[in-house]
Amino acid sequence: MLVKLEDGTSAEILNVLRKRLDAHGLHHCISSANSQIVIGLEKSLSPAVLEDLNALGCISELLPMSTPWKLASKEFKKKTEIAVKGVAIGGPLIAMMAGPCAIESEEQLRSIALQLARAKVKVFRASAFKPRTSPYSFQGMGIEGLKLHKKLQEEHGMLIETEVMDVRDVGVVSEHVDILRIGARNMQNFNLLKEVGKCGKPVILKRGISATVEEWLMSAEYIMAHGNHEVILCERGIRTFENSTRSTLDLSSVAVAKQLTHLPVIVDPSHAAGRKDIIPALSQAAVAIGADGLLIEVHNAPKEAKCDGNQALLPEELESLSQELDKIAKAMGRSL
Amino acid sequence: MLVKLEDGTSAEILNVLRKRLDAHGLHHCISSANSQIVIGLEKSLSPAVLEDLNALGCISELLPMSTPWKLASKEFKKKTEIAVKGVAIGGPLIAMMAGPCAIESEEQLRSIALQLARAKVKVFRASAFKPRTSPYSFQGMGIEGLKLHKKLQEEHGMLIETEVMDVRDVGVVSEHVDILRIGARNMQNFNLLKEVGKCGKPVILKRGISATVEEWLMSAEYIMAHGNHEVILCERGIRTFENSTRSTLDLSSVAVAKQLTHLPVIVDPSHAAGRKDIIPALSQAAVAIGADGLLIEVHNAPKEAKCDGNQALLPEELESLSQELDKIAKAMGRSL
Amino acid sequence: MLVKLEDGTSAEILNVLRKRLDAHGLHHCISSANSQIVIGLEKSLSPAVLEDLNALGCISELLPMSTPWKLASKEFKKKTEIAVKGVAIGGPLIAMMAGPCAIESEEQLRSIALQLARAKVKVFRASAFKPRTSPYSFQGMGIEGLKLHKKLQEEHGMLIETEVMDVRDVGVVSEHVDILRIGARNMQNFNLLKEVGKCGKPVILKRGISATVEEWLMSAEYIMAHGNHEVILCERGIRTFENSTRSTLDLSSVAVAKQLTHLPVIVDPSHAAGRKDIIPALSQAAVAIGADGLLIEVHNAPKEAKCDGNQALLPEELESLSQELDKIAKAMGRSL
Amino acid sequence: MLVKLEDGTSAEILNVLRKRLDAHGLHHCISSANSQIVIGLEKSLSPAVLEDLNALGCISELLPMSTPWKLASKEFKKKTEIAVKGVAIGGPLIAMMAGPCAIESEEQLRSIALQLARAKVKVFRASAFKPRTSPYSFQGMGIEGLKLHKKLQEEHGMLIETEVMDVRDVGVVSEHVDILRIGARNMQNFNLLKEVGKCGKPVILKRGISATVEEWLMSAEYIMAHGNHEVILCERGIRTFENSTRSTLDLSSVAVAKQLTHLPVIVDPSHAAGRKDIIPALSQAAVAIGADGLLIEVHNAPKEAKCDGNQALLPEELESLSQELDKIAKAMGRSL
Repeated sequence: MLVKLEDGTSAEILNVLRKRLDAHGLHHCISSANSQIVIGLEKSLSPAVLEDLNALGCISELLPMSTPWKLASKEFKKKTEIAVKGVAIGGPLIAMMAGPCAIESEEQLRSIALQLARAKVKVFRASAFKPRTSPYSFQGMGIEGLKLHKKLQEEHGMLIETEVMDVRDVGVVSEHVDILRIGARNMQNFNLLKEVGKCGKPVILKRGISATVEEWLMSAEYIMAHGNHEVILCERGIRTFENSTRSTLDLSSVAVAKQLTHLPVIVDPSHAAGRKDIIPALSQAAVAIGADGLLIEVHNAPKEAKCDGNQALLPEELESLSQELDKIAKAMGRSL
Repeated sequence: MLVKLEDGTSAEILNVLRKRLDAHGLHHCISSANSQIVIGLEKSLSPAVLEDLNALGCISELLPMSTPWKLASKEFKKKTEIAVKGVAIGGPLIAMMAGPCAIESEEQLRSIALQLARAKVKVFRASAFKPRTSPYSFQGMGIEGLKLHKKLQEEHGMLIETEVMDVRDVGVVSEHVDILRIGARNMQNFNLLKEVGKCGKPVILKRGISATVEEWLMSAEYIMAHGNHEVILCERGIRTFENSTRSTLDLSSVAVAKQLTHLPVIVDPSHAAGRKDIIPALSQAAVAIGADGLLIEVHNAPKEAKCDGNQALLPEELESLSQELDKIAKAMGRSL
Repeated sequence: MLVKLEDGTSAEILNVLRKRLDAHGLHHCISSANSQIVIGLEKSLSPAVLEDLNALGCISELLPMSTPWKLASKEFKKKTEIAVKGVAIGGPLIAMMAGPCAIESEEQLRSIALQLARAKVKVFRASAFKPRTSPYSFQGMGIEGLKLHKKLQEEHGMLIETEVMDVRDVGVVSEHVDILRIGARNMQNFNLLKEVGKCGKPVILKRGISATVEEWLMSAEYIMAHGNHEVILCERGIRTFENSTRSTLDLSSVAVAKQLTHLPVIVDPSHAAGRKDIIPALSQAAVAIGADGLLIEVHNAPKEAKCDGNQALLPEELESLSQELDKIAKAMGRSL
Repeated sequence: MLVKLEDGTSAEILNVLRKRLDAHGLHHCISSANSQIVIGLEKSLSPAVLEDLNALGCISELLPMSTPWKLASKEFKKKTEIAVKGVAIGGPLIAMMAGPCAIESEEQLRSIALQLARAKVKVFRASAFKPRTSPYSFQGMGIEGLKLHKKLQEEHGMLIETEVMDVRDVGVVSEHVDILRIGARNMQNFNLLKEVGKCGKPVILKRGISATVEEWLMSAEYIMAHGNHEVILCERGIRTFENSTRSTLDLSSVAVAKQLTHLPVIVDPSHAAGRKDIIPALSQAAVAIGADGLLIEVHNAPKEAKCDGNQALLPEELESLSQELDKIAKAMGRSL
């Protein structure tokens, strides 16, 4: 159940309310996004508890929810558009997000960025912290990489985003980029979700490779329940028996998520496929199924990339892909 | 390895060749499609065997193949268009195939057929033999259903197709319909594949719910190796952990198959989804990824359908979907 | 629902009953095993239909079932022991079944058989018909292989079993062996299930690589519903993302099946693992979880085997494994 | 490649070595467990680099490794026994670990602990931090729970273990318990692995529900590469299509891991099954396949448990299970 509080409820009252919920043994999350305070509870309130709380005079509405995700549900809100410095994600625009897997050097970053600007790219992605299967592999440039990312923004002007992997890094990452990304392996790193729930920046939440759509939405709910309602879901493939692609891109999940939630949904065909030859086809399908954006890996010298080079498009390939995608988008009343 | 024989190689010579291959202990398949005879062998011929066979003077070419599927491979042929009574599958047309899960009665079949003709449908699908999980469920109308299917063709004029489940039925099914269908459960019913390999009619080969793309192509190879080169691959979803859809439609497999084979590839979103609300979105994605056709379940009274009613579109819903699909197709230089 | 008929119900009465069920539009299966006739129906009978049928005076009992599998259910029967020429499968014995993947020659078969007799093997397995992914691979010796299998039985005295793949072969296979086997790929080849339902010999039903336990039991139900109650379930691994083994042996399914059905359950570790090093460990686990038998591939010259050589144990390896298994069996009050 | 350093290599020399590796652009991990310093590198050293490093005179041995996991490999070490206060995990003992899912109160914890002491339990498990799919569910008692866990140890005397979910909690958790546990969702939370790599206490590493055996070993390698060689692998089921159990317990993975690594491997049947009826059977199979221990959920009042009550055994059920397991263990030359 969601409990909406009256506008202007004071911090003192909120504190009293919180204590009473604790006293009743009710685990709760207080989400105060856009000046609206909503309290999430696992179940409905009993009449006795309700009477006790009502006495505080701060409850404006009780919203029973038919799903375990509540703030993310279409029952709570019809549609979310997330506007970041003039780019509206979740509206008619299909937001192109692209860039290299890892930040490797200033030259690499600059070179790719300048080429991407021509390919209708709105968000420049690049990771400073890299989750790697082996402890002996390159782990990313860290904070130094973050600084480069921010520094170059003045040159290219695109929004910038990056992955955050560690609860201790949420602060510094939030200061440097416009959009944070939670990787597939961290989709159920609940403490990390709680921290980005307080970071004040939009968050791309990648679906875990073995997460159901329901679990994906529950992870979005974690972020929202801790105060951040700007969550962008990102389908990136699930693990199956099929081995001609690295993961199996589950495009149905985009259509299913669109039935269940008001949040924008984007698609990452690069990590799903793990091979570049089918990325154009997958991107076309993503646009046609109604995705609100694409997250595509691009590298100017894929063979020398420090990770995932074989799935990266060349900047010029992205440019021609964007033209094809725009045609399909227009046939559907949208555009890149 | 594939061994191409000279045009006009006589049945006698072929028989001698076959005996020599047996004598050498070489398992082989002789495929004589379109007057061209090709012999498939698991491995390459040793020089000694080659010399022995060459003495017969009937070998025109040796085709070493880099894949275990050979006749289905792009190395063997660039592209296949299958023309059935004027409908060319595998060319610019996106072939709409639709109809009810099962043939239930003449009235049902006629009513649906007449409505479909308005929705750009080229192939009317309907099953007389139904593979059902429970022995106690309706098993289809059988031969009586087949006869109805054929009888009504005079009224609606669409091509007709149906599933064949039993080696003993291949003959009678071939006499009644234009296109045969092998269901997902029978993708590796190898004796059935061999029989449809000799039936002389185009065959839709559904991917098994746990088959890899390679295994799917190997099953197409079975049909081709026994003489039938008119195989249409059909992606219909694979079994994964995700349960918001009945199967997970693996659209990547369409793009991957297009890289590997010259055969047409179509998509069945209905059985993959198991729910009708996302079928339009999945169909749009299928067209955008390059599928050569769609196989969609339609029923005029879904609630009374003897099977799979909850995934069937109404005829009027298919009609408006076809209009949307045509827009995307046109944006890609194709049409319904 | 299951409808039990009175003992001694005549064929004439049965025929009348059948027609009335048809007239009421009720799809049904008549299973007459061990002189007891049971009719399976998808749902319960309506009062009106029940009254009509009761008038025939042949109904002895109505058994409503809480599961879609009925004859296979523990509600129908507590425990099944299948006795074949003195070997009781499903009782205290853990039945060792072993032999080569394929029948290759008389010498091969004899050589392996004589060695197996020392390893407590009760059932000698060997396939004359081989389902192979590629049409160009060795497809088995066919009927000639069957004849060899039967001929050698006089020498070794073990029970013999083999796979049947084609509805047209059920008759000839039944004449030659003691136990038929339905392979994983044919678990939902429903017409084949119906045919072995009439064959009068025990049937090993392998679980499909993507079949749920429920679907596996439904396939057993098909065989039982057509008259054959001697079904032995065989777990052989399911397809998952894990690739260190060919399939993932789902031993939980043995424990789950034991909760749901009275039928014996055996385990095939060889096809699950696809590698011989872990077959002893898997076999030990199978005995400890309560399996009623093991189906293990053994070859005297694995490197020259025509199929699956790398997963076959040597006969002497099986002998020492059997000794280890017997210790665990005895700790559990059973024995090999 | 692993580089072993001479015993007694000074911190100064190590520092110089580290800088040279950095200068050569070689990402490395320095693991100094048990006074032995080993440096892990992704690839082999080039001759030029090797010459440069050799000049420092501190390299005792170069160990090329045929697997991406190195310290965890059988090439590095034959067998690891982890001794914790007299309990040796990985030797002939099969270590019983049991307890409630979550620490709920002092009374609950004490009540369960006292009963477990009779069931041959060596390690008392209980979680203070709970990863929950929903933000609105009970998240565990936190530090207060940890304190209770430690306090009660004086009464029951068993080893105690608990889950750690957050890099910021590794210190406090290490101070309170004997063994740390990394949950399945955090198997690839690489920064958490690095932190427990420095904690100085043994770590149970649960396999992720979609992790391959290779990835599981790579995560163990992370912990070892950061200095902690006391890793206990724990199989707890993988996510598949089968839904009669919550996950599919992959017992083959125990046998496979035993071929690949010297680390102990235990099994958690409770979370795999998600239902209590088959836990005895799964536990028996785990012992028979060679597991070094079991991790089983036990609750004295399962219906009132704050999480996962339906998979918890009663203490008395565990007691009788332990007796059965001991019989199988003894048949294999081990004991509980």
